[in-house]
Amino acid sequence: MAKRRAAGSCCCPRAPMKEDNARFCLLAGLILLYLLCGAAIFSALEHPFELRARLLWKQQLDNFTRRYRVNLGALHTLLRQYEEANGAGIRVDALRPRWDFSGAFYFVGTVVSTIGFGMTTPATIAGKIFLIFYGLIGCAATILFFNLFLERIITMLAYIMRWCHERRLRCAGVGVVSSREESSGEEDSLEGWKPSVYYVMLILGIASVVIACSASTLYSSMENWSYVDSLYFCFVAFSTIGFGDLVSSQRQQYESQEAYRFGNCLFILMGVCCIYSLFNVISIVIKQTLNWILGKLRRQLRQLAHFRPKRIKRNAVQPISSHHRYTDGSVETVCDSETDAGALAEVQVGRRLSGEMISVNEFMVSNKVSLALLQKQLSETAHQGPRQSYSHQNGFSGGVGALGIMNNRLQETSVDR
Amino acid sequence: MAKRRAAGSCCCPRAPMKEDNARFCLLAGLILLYLLCGAAIFSALEHPFELRARLLWKQQLDNFTRRYRVNLGALHTLLRQYEEANGAGIRVDALRPRWDFSGAFYFVGTVVSTIGFGMTTPATIAGKIFLIFYGLIGCAATILFFNLFLERIITMLAYIMRWCHERRLRCAGVGVVSSREESSGEEDSLEGWKPSVYYVMLILGIASVVIACSASTLYSSMENWSYVDSLYFCFVAFSTIGFGDLVSSQRQQYESQEAYRFGNCLFILMGVCCIYSLFNVISIVIKQTLNWILGKLRRQLRQLAHFRPKRIKRNAVQPISSHHRYTDGSVETVCDSETDAGALAEVQVGRRLSGEMISVNEFMVSNKVSLALLQKQLSETAHQGPRQSYSHQNGFSGGVGALGIMNNRLQETSVDR
Repeated sequence: MAKRRAAGSCCCPRAPMKEDNARFCLLAGLILLYLLCGAAIFSALEHPFELRARLLWKQQLDNFTRRYRVNLGALHTLLRQYEEANGAGIRVDALRPRWDFSGAFYFVGTVVSTIGFGMTTPATIAGKIFLIFYGLIGCAATILFFNLFLERIITMLAYIMRWCHERRLRCAGVGVVSSREESSGEEDSLEGWKPSVYYVMLILGIASVVIACSASTLYSSMENWSYVDSLYFCFVAFSTIGFGDLVSSQRQQYESQEAYRFGNCLFILMGVCCIYSLFNVISIVIKQTLNWILGKLRRQLRQLAHFRPKRIKRNAVQPISSHHRYTDGSVETVCDSETDAGALAEVQVGRRLSGEMISVNEFMVSNKVSLALLQKQLSETAHQGPRQSYSHQNGFSGGVGALGIMNNRLQETSVDR
Repeated sequence: MAKRRAAGSCCCPRAPMKEDNARFCLLAGLILLYLLCGAAIFSALEHPFELRARLLWKQQLDNFTRRYRVNLGALHTLLRQYEEANGAGIRVDALRPRWDFSGAFYFVGTVVSTIGFGMTTPATIAGKIFLIFYGLIGCAATILFFNLFLERIITMLAYIMRWCHERRLRCAGVGVVSSREESSGEEDSLEGWKPSVYYVMLILGIASVVIACSASTLYSSMENWSYVDSLYFCFVAFSTIGFGDLVSSQRQQYESQEAYRFGNCLFILMGVCCIYSLFNVISIVIKQTLNWILGKLRRQLRQLAHFRPKRIKRNAVQPISSHHRYTDGSVETVCDSETDAGALAEVQVGRRLSGEMISVNEFMVSNKVSLALLQKQLSETAHQGPRQSYSHQNGFSGGVGALGIMNNRLQETSVDR
């Protein structure tokens, strides 16, 4: 495979680079579009409420000044002072102390996880400068932690999924031992066995929902928030957005306070890890969609350039022989535009041009076909002994979450690649 | 290399797994320790200020109630109402509207980047529910964007660094062409050429500091913040912590407002991308330190188990022949504990045991030695034509930031691995 890729790169060395740049620009454009749409929708949803709140506050202020005959300027000064006091964590209804040890611990937790609720912020210059250096190391360490967690959870899911498949096969009475020996020669098929990104996404999604719902039940009873508010808080905290409009465990007293504080920390830790993994898995799916869009655009451009007659339609969803055998069946649409596209471009250019445009519908169909193929391959490869699979799964020392790319591309980080 | 690893894995298949788990637990323990230390320091720095602020607010409130003979209960009610109004983004000194289009755009920007200042938050139930689904896709897309940015920036740095080396060699008058032909047989040395993680960290660090300082100059002049406050804001925003105690571009009017808003967005975008990359590079260095600590611990445990007489001291910092030739020279301390440690453990166990404990000092020395070796190898390999290097650098379709691990371990994401 490496040879093939190298040969392709010799022919057009800058093709993968262009591909990467195109994907990057496409994503940037789509995110900008997403932001514009989001801004329009949120503006429509929230603007009326803002106006009402502004009116309400004006009335309340008027009432107060009229009733107590207070100078409005003096009241404004007091409110400004209150804002300043708010910054130091002071409220009318006493909150837990900000900077005792447990408060400071909660604070540093929100720093290194980059949640940053902002219910507590350093007010002294020394504190602010220290925060910069503290956060630099802390956030980097936490990113590593999240990535190692991601690695652990995917390894675990892979084990569980293989175990399930093995058990299912054993129950079905398939000759496991014989087929294992038979297929032990097929090193490639073993190498190809990896858990499906869709299953992993599903499992992580379910886990996230379960954690968020459990946490919401706790919060809504302890904090007297509505269930929707609690769910909203969970998402904002777990995704590390951390607005700070709702913050858990801020009152001075709770029933069974220590247990609640511990449970709060645990839920936030689990939630953040889970949602981080989910985000990363979703981002893979987004990347594939981008690749598919790019592939479609490229084919359309080429077709415009050299118009050719259509051929057999089924060609479009047919997986490409050996090269893509163990990847998604939608390879021709998705995986071709991976970075080794340059390598394949020369070989398959005729083939690609002969294929018809693939609509989203057909893409979905081809995806379903590929899932069926996948199932077959899973059942073919799942009953290979776990021994070899270990060496496969843990053999990639390079790939640790966000580190993957750097492990591949930087010195000192890659051992034998 | 793959064969060697596989062979090792057959002997003790669970070793890399244990290694990974040990690293994960070690990191979790160290982060907990880091949090405890941070909490103690922040508590010591900030607690006195909190007490002073509390006292000050009490005095201000007393003064007001005495002077205007206001019922304290009524004033508390007003302040609670003001808190609520604050939640809707209302302040005494008029801020820019929260939910007009530009305000909503700023808001969604803080959502998808997970900065979450919280200066604007959805107050309606519909807004909160929509936020959950909007953020789920948006944050995942932004993570992908950051990872693709990371990939682009590292590829770019690799090009620049190779170009610099080539130019230096050409200026020095070394026979580039002849040595290129000579070494073209050494495929391994070419494969080994990657930019140093330390250089990349340095460059990203400098870039981050430059961006933060430029942005701070802008903010301190536009927002009337002190320079330290501006730097603090930059770090908090760029690292996506986003406390929200300081938020840029919130006043109703600025000089040349449109330009400032655009500059603000641009600085935040550049800063976030840069600091994200920096965090990831630092996290690699942390990972290597963890590996080194684990290796040291393991050796100490083994020495305790089978005590052997000490041998020649120099043995400890001597790089291991061919296997680790193109990685960091501190291979015996660092890279051995990578996931292929299981493979090497059997081969080198005698050697390792014969080596003496390596102190941090010696580790640094060996690192310097290795950097010298590295320089030599860089100069040997840098003047290989760019053609083959392209195929190397872009050949790893698997490694895209946080996606690296999943590209290695999940189906549908890897093309030919």
